[in-house]
Amino acid sequence: MHSNRINIPQLHSRIKTAEDAAGLFKDKMVVASSGFTKAGDSKAVLKALAARAANDPLQITLITGASLGHGTDGLLAANHVLAKRMPFQVDPVLRRSINEGEVLFLDQHLGESAELINEGIVPIDIAIIEAVKINEDGSLVPTTSVGNSPAFAAAAKQIIVEINTSVPLSLEGVHDIFSAGIWPSRKIIPITETGTRIGNSSIQVDPSKIVAIVLTETTDSPAQINERDEKTRAIANHLLEFFNHEIKKGRLLPSLRPLQSGIGKVANAVMEGFIDGNFHNLTMYSEVIQDSAFNLIDAGKLAFASASSITVSQECYQRVFNNFERYKPYLILRPQDISNAAEVIHRLGVISINTAIECDIYGNVNSTHIGGTHMMNGIGGSNDFARNAYMSVFVTQSSSKAGISHIVPMASHIDNTEHDVDIFVTENGLADLRGLAPREKARLIINNCAHVSYRDELNEYFNNACKAGGQTPHLLQEALSWHTRLKENGTMLKTNPVEF
Amino acid sequence: MHSNRINIPQLHSRIKTAEDAAGLFKDKMVVASSGFTKAGDSKAVLKALAARAANDPLQITLITGASLGHGTDGLLAANHVLAKRMPFQVDPVLRRSINEGEVLFLDQHLGESAELINEGIVPIDIAIIEAVKINEDGSLVPTTSVGNSPAFAAAAKQIIVEINTSVPLSLEGVHDIFSAGIWPSRKIIPITETGTRIGNSSIQVDPSKIVAIVLTETTDSPAQINERDEKTRAIANHLLEFFNHEIKKGRLLPSLRPLQSGIGKVANAVMEGFIDGNFHNLTMYSEVIQDSAFNLIDAGKLAFASASSITVSQECYQRVFNNFERYKPYLILRPQDISNAAEVIHRLGVISINTAIECDIYGNVNSTHIGGTHMMNGIGGSNDFARNAYMSVFVTQSSSKAGISHIVPMASHIDNTEHDVDIFVTENGLADLRGLAPREKARLIINNCAHVSYRDELNEYFNNACKAGGQTPHLLQEALSWHTRLKENGTMLKTNPVEF
Repeated sequence: MHSNRINIPQLHSRIKTAEDAAGLFKDKMVVASSGFTKAGDSKAVLKALAARAANDPLQITLITGASLGHGTDGLLAANHVLAKRMPFQVDPVLRRSINEGEVLFLDQHLGESAELINEGIVPIDIAIIEAVKINEDGSLVPTTSVGNSPAFAAAAKQIIVEINTSVPLSLEGVHDIFSAGIWPSRKIIPITETGTRIGNSSIQVDPSKIVAIVLTETTDSPAQINERDEKTRAIANHLLEFFNHEIKKGRLLPSLRPLQSGIGKVANAVMEGFIDGNFHNLTMYSEVIQDSAFNLIDAGKLAFASASSITVSQECYQRVFNNFERYKPYLILRPQDISNAAEVIHRLGVISINTAIECDIYGNVNSTHIGGTHMMNGIGGSNDFARNAYMSVFVTQSSSKAGISHIVPMASHIDNTEHDVDIFVTENGLADLRGLAPREKARLIINNCAHVSYRDELNEYFNNACKAGGQTPHLLQEALSWHTRLKENGTMLKTNPVEF
Repeated sequence: MHSNRINIPQLHSRIKTAEDAAGLFKDKMVVASSGFTKAGDSKAVLKALAARAANDPLQITLITGASLGHGTDGLLAANHVLAKRMPFQVDPVLRRSINEGEVLFLDQHLGESAELINEGIVPIDIAIIEAVKINEDGSLVPTTSVGNSPAFAAAAKQIIVEINTSVPLSLEGVHDIFSAGIWPSRKIIPITETGTRIGNSSIQVDPSKIVAIVLTETTDSPAQINERDEKTRAIANHLLEFFNHEIKKGRLLPSLRPLQSGIGKVANAVMEGFIDGNFHNLTMYSEVIQDSAFNLIDAGKLAFASASSITVSQECYQRVFNNFERYKPYLILRPQDISNAAEVIHRLGVISINTAIECDIYGNVNSTHIGGTHMMNGIGGSNDFARNAYMSVFVTQSSSKAGISHIVPMASHIDNTEHDVDIFVTENGLADLRGLAPREKARLIINNCAHVSYRDELNEYFNNACKAGGQTPHLLQEALSWHTRLKENGTMLKTNPVEF
């Protein structure tokens, strides 16, 4: 039984139910779990742990690659299992617990989250790793993501493997597991093209650390389908037009440079936009491979995609994993400290495209906090890419609902500073901020990108601030007034707009 | 004459006075100059250009490595020569022009400033490069800094060389000139130890681009001597004690890891503190080599120092350059896109020590702006190092003058986000922020680091903010009130303190 999935006969005796495996956890443990952008996460053991905690309370620190699917984070939060959570999440229930101060959340650069573990600063008690199979040498073939699993497997005292029999064995070979090691013998990451293979196809594991094997057959939570609408199409078109302009100027080729694209409907619309454009031989060096990448492969536009996970819609999941041999030559899945490595992103000259929650008139981007205080998801890999990219693009709709401008005098929280934002795009237009001083950036962002309803008041703020002087003119007593007014009056504007 | 300094006979005819060389500049030109932390800058031509502009107005964009010495930036600003300036400055006269909006200033990561030039986004008309000598093949041996000079020399249409005869020829061999090139053939930077040599001893130059050679004999502006005082000693002691604690925990060795230290009296006190401590075989991978490094070499504590410049006091200058062969085996000078390369800083596991202007209770650091609006110097390399270091330390005095706390509810400008700040130190104590969520950081920063006069009001703000909830609790209507109160009442406090 499952002999092709568990290739060490002695380990068959460690097959347990999820409920039994959940019994291994103790209060105050530091637990690590595979899972990145809802792909390759624990499907059974964490849920069983949440159920156990309903009767037998315990609290853990939970570290993952990035977000988990299946509402698992919400279940854990609802059952008060989480004392601390890192480095990323997207769950509405957990989000509430974080913002209420019940769960301590470490919002970390995804490319750096393995470092605390590798360096022994945060020791791991138990790691749960979803795998396609266990090899003869104990090594694990991951499923649809790699994330931080290699670091977890190396550091954890005990390992629980979830063998997911719904994921085809044909995934073996798509992963490229490499660790640069730690100081003083940290190695060069010798990736010079998106497709360079530098490691192994499986994660090294000491089989004696495997304390339980749980069998599952649940597929990943499907990604939400983001249909393009008028605004996201407009944003995509501004950016594609700009890329064409850069090609004409001789600064880019029709193959552009390796692309990174965040998650979300705007980023998706941009990627889908490449299908119609005059671009070809595109490549990706990104965190996550989404529907748009497979559509670009099918359209003959995308030559290669490197990332740490595959997160796709239900329809796309069937298409890809029922026919994985067709797509495998185009793909590589890497640990997140490699997919998001500063070294590689800079060397490859990545063009990064990420979504902003808000951007101020000087180009400082808030990627995480609603109203400056409440966590949305986390910084994710946005700054890993934006900080080191050849060209860092941030996209957002200029406004949302009545009364909320996404371009504000001063960002209420800053994750990506003006130094790391090259191009800013909304449905109204694009601002190329390269080579500009803050006062030049402000004019461009307000007049090219802001929603027309807010332009006058933004210009008024900027002009008054300039009278007070400075490199980055501000009136501190008014700088955050757009946010406080929104809370009090339901609109950021001093005067109510006629129409949005 | 100067045949050992200018080794291409045909070039002798291009020797000009600084005044004649200054005649080569035209209005609206983009001019690049060597110079990094006041070392190896143009001593004659830029000053002559300022003098010329007094009668014959013109405006240029000036790009350097980092700061210039000899008040040159101030002279240029006073004579209205600067339309735009990048990527760094420290001049009080220029600072005023920047803050008045007369000079547009691009505050750039020093490690990234070559990229705009290499990629052709900012084309260079004339580059001025200070050199020890011109070799037979036209290549230049730089003086006391490398900075962006290799990028300038490659990109500029015309080059003016300032041969500084006061700098000994024995400097030849201390520089290591390497360019990773540009996409799509950007190379690995193969540095695996602070002392790895990967390039040439001189900057390649097409001799036909050399339009003028100007002879000078002016030494670099001496660095200010920063004597240790009670506060800076206290900061240094907290940090040294912490390093000892990390050694005991087995996370560091007595050789620590390669050190980077910013400029300033606090950073200097920390470096000087190593002389007395139980540390040995220290190394530096930094931007600038200061007096403290030579004192550590003389004390047998520092095994090697890599940087982009040597900036020392007058006394130290004599000691080092009159006896350069003694120090040369300990030193390497690199281009600033190599000294500050994310790739190398991360690989070497650097411990970075930089100075904050202010830090908020959640660990966000303002490195540049006074009162949130007025530029001090620039971000420099602080985020190149803090973002990629193994351990990123920020130091500051907890308060200054009466009424100014350097720990505030919300930073009025953010250059280094909480994600990039591991250790924060003031004379009162140290906060190890690794593995902590924002609410945990706040308690630690307020209670360990803030000046006792401000602790109650900081805790009051934090407690009230927590009642309103959030990952990063804030009361937006009060968040910047400490800064506005300072402007209005001369103190950040609501109640005047008894004593500071």
